Amino acid sequence: MNVLDIIEKKRDKKTLTKEEIEYFVNGYTNNQITDYQAAAFVMAVFINGMTKQETTDLTLAMAHSGEILDLSTLNATIVDKHSTGGVGDKVSIILLPIVSSLGVPVAKMSGRGLGFTGGTIDKLESIPGYKTDIGMDQFIENVKKIGISLISQTLNMAPADKKLYSLRDTISCVESIPLIASSIMSKKIASGAQKIVLDVTVGKGAFMNKIEQARELATTMIDIGKLANRQTVCILTNMDEPLGYNVGNSLEIIEAIDFLKGNMPEDVEQVILTLGSYMIKLAGKGEDLEENKKKMLENIANGKAYEKFKELVKAQGGEISFVENIENIPRAKYIEPIYSLKSGYIHQINALEVGKIACSLGAGRITKEDSIDHQAGIILQKKVADFVEEGEVLAYIHTNKMEKLEDAKKALLENIKIEEEKIEKPKTILEMIE
Amino acid sequence: MNVLDIIEKKRDKKTLTKEEIEYFVNGYTNNQITDYQAAAFVMAVFINGMTKQETTDLTLAMAHSGEILDLSTLNATIVDKHSTGGVGDKVSIILLPIVSSLGVPVAKMSGRGLGFTGGTIDKLESIPGYKTDIGMDQFIENVKKIGISLISQTLNMAPADKKLYSLRDTISCVESIPLIASSIMSKKIASGAQKIVLDVTVGKGAFMNKIEQARELATTMIDIGKLANRQTVCILTNMDEPLGYNVGNSLEIIEAIDFLKGNMPEDVEQVILTLGSYMIKLAGKGEDLEENKKKMLENIANGKAYEKFKELVKAQGGEISFVENIENIPRAKYIEPIYSLKSGYIHQINALEVGKIACSLGAGRITKEDSIDHQAGIILQKKVADFVEEGEVLAYIHTNKMEKLEDAKKALLENIKIEEEKIEKPKTILEMIE
Repeated sequence: MNVLDIIEKKRDKKTLTKEEIEYFVNGYTNNQITDYQAAAFVMAVFINGMTKQETTDLTLAMAHSGEILDLSTLNATIVDKHSTGGVGDKVSIILLPIVSSLGVPVAKMSGRGLGFTGGTIDKLESIPGYKTDIGMDQFIENVKKIGISLISQTLNMAPADKKLYSLRDTISCVESIPLIASSIMSKKIASGAQKIVLDVTVGKGAFMNKIEQARELATTMIDIGKLANRQTVCILTNMDEPLGYNVGNSLEIIEAIDFLKGNMPEDVEQVILTLGSYMIKLAGKGEDLEENKKKMLENIANGKAYEKFKELVKAQGGEISFVENIENIPRAKYIEPIYSLKSGYIHQINALEVGKIACSLGAGRITKEDSIDHQAGIILQKKVADFVEEGEVLAYIHTNKMEKLEDAKKALLENIKIEEEKIEKPKTILEMIE
Repeated sequence: MNVLDIIEKKRDKKTLTKEEIEYFVNGYTNNQITDYQAAAFVMAVFINGMTKQETTDLTLAMAHSGEILDLSTLNATIVDKHSTGGVGDKVSIILLPIVSSLGVPVAKMSGRGLGFTGGTIDKLESIPGYKTDIGMDQFIENVKKIGISLISQTLNMAPADKKLYSLRDTISCVESIPLIASSIMSKKIASGAQKIVLDVTVGKGAFMNKIEQARELATTMIDIGKLANRQTVCILTNMDEPLGYNVGNSLEIIEAIDFLKGNMPEDVEQVILTLGSYMIKLAGKGEDLEENKKKMLENIANGKAYEKFKELVKAQGGEISFVENIENIPRAKYIEPIYSLKSGYIHQINALEVGKIACSLGAGRITKEDSIDHQAGIILQKKVADFVEEGEVLAYIHTNKMEKLEDAKKALLENIKIEEEKIEKPKTILEMIE
């Protein structure tokens, strides 16, 4: 076997064997296959596609290119939850304590944010003292003891995926369904997931702008799940406008805590209940999805979900006083209201642009090495379909960089579209694919 | 403009502008565009193709990526001749003195051999004293004085082509018509050609194995010629068996001299006369192709072509005594006959394999840095369609490496196919495309 034959086969739209895909992935991981050979291969995959079996073989080869998190000592079905990314996405922080409070064990590794998309780990780190790198033993121990732990990726997981992912960025090969699907699924498999619930976001602030693409990605990941023996469910959710009201790390923690105390924005609630009902089902803790939703609402109402969140924070070293008194959480130096220039109905709040503006205020990273400002962000006062009066506050900008304020205000106003006509509230849950 | 947009456009099968192609070629030449980005681009071109205009723009951009040979001081129409390569191809060495003796100025830069394909420069260097690097002034001077000069590529010509050519080899992107066509034509344009006669070889020992591919390559190069204002004619010639009888550097020089003295193998004669008649026509020295062939035969018969060859050798420092007494030319230490194991008609002499065997005997290079043995090679005694008796000599192997003899004999026998049935002599000139 050699790399030239493998590239040629994919170039000519032929189907690669498991052995050929493993040869490529291992060769690239240990630098025996060069970046330019990988680039030619990736471009051929981009243009000529991959079968379900090829995509699964690629996924498994990438998953096994590095360390695999071993969760077998937990003696439980571990259901992982993953989102393809969005703006204002605080779902994991809310959802995981809820399902944990219902007996679903949560052992989750999360990522940091890059670009306009936030990361769960960055958000958790805005809680003073919360350690995201507690070590594998402590991680497993916490799951055993309190049923939940949420840490950052410390293992050398799926290094082949890491290399291919950076390469794709530099050769215009990002938007390929088999490459995106295998990248996501390889990381899930490497992080020990046995069953997977995926939030596939769709719209302006998502990786997939169109429902057709999102559906294709979802079915591809479900197919991989089937062939790789990891049952997978995909929920397609709307990411045209930001999820909920708050965008920015500590601002999203505040909204998450508020949610767990029962103050639930409609769109966030729908995402949480839908994803959660499937997590509970896949974990074998409840067959009936509607019943599962009820149990989740119950544990929010009776405070058990919130208590589980506090247990999690405490177990990872976070300051509970911070969680219990969100009004004491330090805020950014400048909090500027944005006033509506006219009366009417909100037709659009461009999630991508809101994400970029929040990033420019300090909430996100441009490169992996950047540090972030946990206090920076945006709090929306309105959602799409809401009515707004001229002069009413549309949003507040939170930042410590005064010099960024004016541009951010201007950009935010431009990206909230107001029209005279009434419109219907957009659907949050677009599709569920099993 | 940036490289990501250019790669994306070709990835999506869109047409690139002249400016985008120049941006890519210049960026790659000066290392601002990386090998992996170029690899992704090349794979996209391989799969999605290029329009005539794109291929022409690529050709011109590569031609202008380095030095361009300026032949304007010659005040003449310079017709270049080029072959896509083959085994036993001594055409330039015979053809150019003939047309020069008919008043067609010849100012030619040639290449060295690599792999199983020989190079004109290597062959000329088997004449003791012949200098292939006489410097540009002397080169021009010789063309002015005696109407012919034949040197090696000394300028930094088409460096973008050089880089892309080596890259293609390592990423399974060799057999692409627009890439092959632009590679050939860029070098011709960089070497100052105003009109071009191309010998497009077809068959086992050629780059193009099938006539359809060869035809596509030929029409692509003719299209480039039209759009780049360099009139181009392509002759498709048979390269299933080696051209003529001798394969190997000094052995081919001996056959070339023999030819110029009137001893003309039929296939070589046809290629020489066809290519030559077009060169004379394109140079404006004779409209009628058949008339041109007659003039060529005349100048062979009356010795003028042979005299021109001797003038060429003398002007470049070669020893005339060597040319005049080919029987004195030093031969390899081992000259081994290959006897036929049966009687019958020769159905095949695999040119590719003969080329590889000659290479193994020392006649060719595996890598650019290898030195070659001018004496090594093969002299065939039979051509396809000839009858051979059992025990009759099929060929002689010439080598200085005794240890290579046995394998070479075995391989040569395997690659000369003899059958009972009579077959027709294969056509040498397959098509002429203008």
